[in-house]
Amino acid sequence: MELEAKILDISAGGRRIVILSDEAAGILGVHSSDRVQIAYNSKRIIAIVNIAENFPKNQVGLYREPAQELGVKSGDKVEVQYVSMPESLRFIRKKVMGERLEEDEIKAIVRDVVEHHLSDAEIAAFLTAMHIRGASMEEIVALTRAMVETGRTIDFGKKPILDKHSIGGIPGDKTTILVAPIVAAAGYVIPKTSSRAVTSPAGTADRVECLCPVDLSIEEIIEVVKKTNGCMVWGGALELSPADDIFIQVEYALGIDPMLLPSIMSKKKAIGSTHLVVDIPTGRGAKVKTIGEAHLLAGDFIELGKALGIHVQCGITFGEQPLGYAIGPALEAKEALEAITGNGARDLIDKATELAGILFRMVGIEDGKRYAEAILKSGKAEKKLREIIEAQGGNPKIRPEDIAIGDKIAEIISNRNGRVLWINNQHVAQIAREAGAPKDKGAGIKLRVKLGDRVKKGDILFEIYAERSTKLEAALKLAETIKPIGVGMRLDEKMLIDTVPTEIKHIKAFVIER
Amino acid sequence: MELEAKILDISAGGRRIVILSDEAAGILGVHSSDRVQIAYNSKRIIAIVNIAENFPKNQVGLYREPAQELGVKSGDKVEVQYVSMPESLRFIRKKVMGERLEEDEIKAIVRDVVEHHLSDAEIAAFLTAMHIRGASMEEIVALTRAMVETGRTIDFGKKPILDKHSIGGIPGDKTTILVAPIVAAAGYVIPKTSSRAVTSPAGTADRVECLCPVDLSIEEIIEVVKKTNGCMVWGGALELSPADDIFIQVEYALGIDPMLLPSIMSKKKAIGSTHLVVDIPTGRGAKVKTIGEAHLLAGDFIELGKALGIHVQCGITFGEQPLGYAIGPALEAKEALEAITGNGARDLIDKATELAGILFRMVGIEDGKRYAEAILKSGKAEKKLREIIEAQGGNPKIRPEDIAIGDKIAEIISNRNGRVLWINNQHVAQIAREAGAPKDKGAGIKLRVKLGDRVKKGDILFEIYAERSTKLEAALKLAETIKPIGVGMRLDEKMLIDTVPTEIKHIKAFVIER
Repeated sequence: MELEAKILDISAGGRRIVILSDEAAGILGVHSSDRVQIAYNSKRIIAIVNIAENFPKNQVGLYREPAQELGVKSGDKVEVQYVSMPESLRFIRKKVMGERLEEDEIKAIVRDVVEHHLSDAEIAAFLTAMHIRGASMEEIVALTRAMVETGRTIDFGKKPILDKHSIGGIPGDKTTILVAPIVAAAGYVIPKTSSRAVTSPAGTADRVECLCPVDLSIEEIIEVVKKTNGCMVWGGALELSPADDIFIQVEYALGIDPMLLPSIMSKKKAIGSTHLVVDIPTGRGAKVKTIGEAHLLAGDFIELGKALGIHVQCGITFGEQPLGYAIGPALEAKEALEAITGNGARDLIDKATELAGILFRMVGIEDGKRYAEAILKSGKAEKKLREIIEAQGGNPKIRPEDIAIGDKIAEIISNRNGRVLWINNQHVAQIAREAGAPKDKGAGIKLRVKLGDRVKKGDILFEIYAERSTKLEAALKLAETIKPIGVGMRLDEKMLIDTVPTEIKHIKAFVIER
Repeated sequence: MELEAKILDISAGGRRIVILSDEAAGILGVHSSDRVQIAYNSKRIIAIVNIAENFPKNQVGLYREPAQELGVKSGDKVEVQYVSMPESLRFIRKKVMGERLEEDEIKAIVRDVVEHHLSDAEIAAFLTAMHIRGASMEEIVALTRAMVETGRTIDFGKKPILDKHSIGGIPGDKTTILVAPIVAAAGYVIPKTSSRAVTSPAGTADRVECLCPVDLSIEEIIEVVKKTNGCMVWGGALELSPADDIFIQVEYALGIDPMLLPSIMSKKKAIGSTHLVVDIPTGRGAKVKTIGEAHLLAGDFIELGKALGIHVQCGITFGEQPLGYAIGPALEAKEALEAITGNGARDLIDKATELAGILFRMVGIEDGKRYAEAILKSGKAEKKLREIIEAQGGNPKIRPEDIAIGDKIAEIISNRNGRVLWINNQHVAQIAREAGAPKDKGAGIKLRVKLGDRVKKGDILFEIYAERSTKLEAALKLAETIKPIGVGMRLDEKMLIDTVPTEIKHIKAFVIER
């Protein structure tokens, strides 16, 4: 039927939704969540119907994106007709029922996700079913390929392309800011894309942003990599895996992460990685709790890599405490800059050179770790970092003390003598977020002790940094409640790690940070 | 933070969504799908955030419903602040992970569904998890109670309240139009609420609407029942189970129905039913395929009824073919009216008197079926039907021939001699829908043969009725492709029931018609 377009002056985050009156919907025979085709001149789009009472019955309401795609203005006449449910919805239902999906079926789902033919509810049903039913390696491979095919790819015109990824979960993990320059300084191409924090106190993109801009276009990235062999950019707006960008939005609220493997690997494939090291931090308080689980996950990464033509090796790393001492974007950028100039925390340096070393071994350098250490020691890594900073539009002469840190500071003191027996990653992250990280870049935590350190009553355990005093107070209050660091004389003497009160505050773990 | 309200002149079907610019969302620290609290004067609501690029950063966009609740106008200043995820989301996640939910947890979910604190994606995850993980009887009872508590209830000030429900799936099932008058004529209260068709060719509300108005308010229903002991009204707008109204919307697209029991029983409880007969049509082509499955479902209905204080008995009925001969709102209303005046199809009369008979036995009348037959034969049921029609605002003198039927008619002929070996319910329903039912009330199908009937080559198998010739043609084309009636000499001689082509057209079964 012919209806008059009414352009709603808002965007719905890319969702292809149109509004119809209940009268018009009745005549078309459509219900809420059904699809209609809207035609204007020679253009056609499929959109999902929301039915509104009191909407003019001769109009169809269009959000900004579908209106732009059709090139239609308010008052224009468009032809609206019912179209049956997309086939991909049948495949989603198949997965809900517990069946395995074929490659073609997965492609149809991913294509319809990217083209906004599926509603959030339908995508949520798919993700929930994937989480509960699990996915076979064939399904994971098909998902990853479909996610690459529906996104943009970058061709650096060179091989090998080295890459590093961490599955995350460890506060303060600024390893990338060391690994990328070490690898690039050795003459290898390492075009590193990273994410921003969603539920953690800092993502690599947030950290690097304290050193230089990270929001580069694909053309700019190619230029930076041509100049320096490396880059450290935000991958979120590059549309390398638009399906994943949509999956993440839906997963975020649900707190499930069934797309971990395809999500990570589709982006690696899209930028042409040939050799990839995956960091799997493991331990109580990390995403992966046991070495057995870490091996299973590593096996999946390696198998998926084979199917995609990417050489993958995994590093299972110690994940029972934050990495280094600093947590929060600016504090971490500062610590990374200090580390690359030769003044680094032992665990940070060790992890960075181990991971860079794995990459070096993969491309044929025998003692990879020693090679990485040598590059770091020689100052070549620092030089390379400054080249990258400059190429991305930052100040190459930046010194650690140039990075602004929150000036509202509180100290948390030990109330007894002993050793640091445990540090709770989740609690440290929460306190840093309460202090304002990642939004307030200067906010966060600086640990003064790490696992095994001797502590005397009255010693400072950690400092909280904030940009605003209200935030500092909130973080301090939280720190006093949840006590993220345990001090005792012997491991067997302090048995209580945490208490769970009747009222459990709803805490999001770092799923879907990638 | 303080933002300026911008009222979007559309409604989003009750969804509590607000639009924020990415800048404002960044400052508030919220992501898409996070919640904010919006305060204006002394009023507060919680809404789900959609983030839009290019939205003015000093504004918050409000759909019509939340704006009305707050009493806010465009340009007013409102206070917007981040609130953490509702606790119910944690319980949904718990169900996704496979855990059983406690009564309090289920109450929190249902309350947040009704108050629009959960997004469609979150509700879809819950329903998908309920479908895959299954629900214990304790969970089903808790769901049903929570759905009643969050809805309106009707008190007729009398006991017992008799009721009848069919789980549906059989085209042409107009039993209610006989059962309600029979029971009311015997002096028992039977306030029957019914649904409209969603994916079938006619719901009871669509059928009854060809006799009298069905869209009554609760006050009007009480009045009708006071006058006549019965009613036959549309339950969809009464808000007896607003949670279910929302669940159904989300389930519709997904084609799953994990809420069957709570959905039906919450509405029965809300209108105060004390004695309920549930019709479970069983057979190939029905929702329930085997008598074993029917017994399991019946057991669940009875157990849930006990927990709610409703006496339930179930009738397992023959569901291998349509009931009576007519399919489509007007054709069925006509057939029901003919049947109640003494000229009814054998299966329709038998089923109606059996189900009424079960109700009679439940309230102490020994030979319930014979009692029901006597009421029907005596003309008291017809008299009662006409009273109800009048009380609901229809013409009590309506004759079958007054009901308008589509005047575009096509006949489908048998191409061989034999007996009717099978009738495919789904196919019959699809052809009737293609002809225009339920939207075109006069459209549908009239069978000329039923299972076991002798047929000669050239005999009419069924007629298609339509109001528009384009619809008739489409239905005729479909009928010629899918052949809904099988004719052969012996059951063992015609083995092929249906062919499944490579291109499967996506067909929705009648789930969620209730």
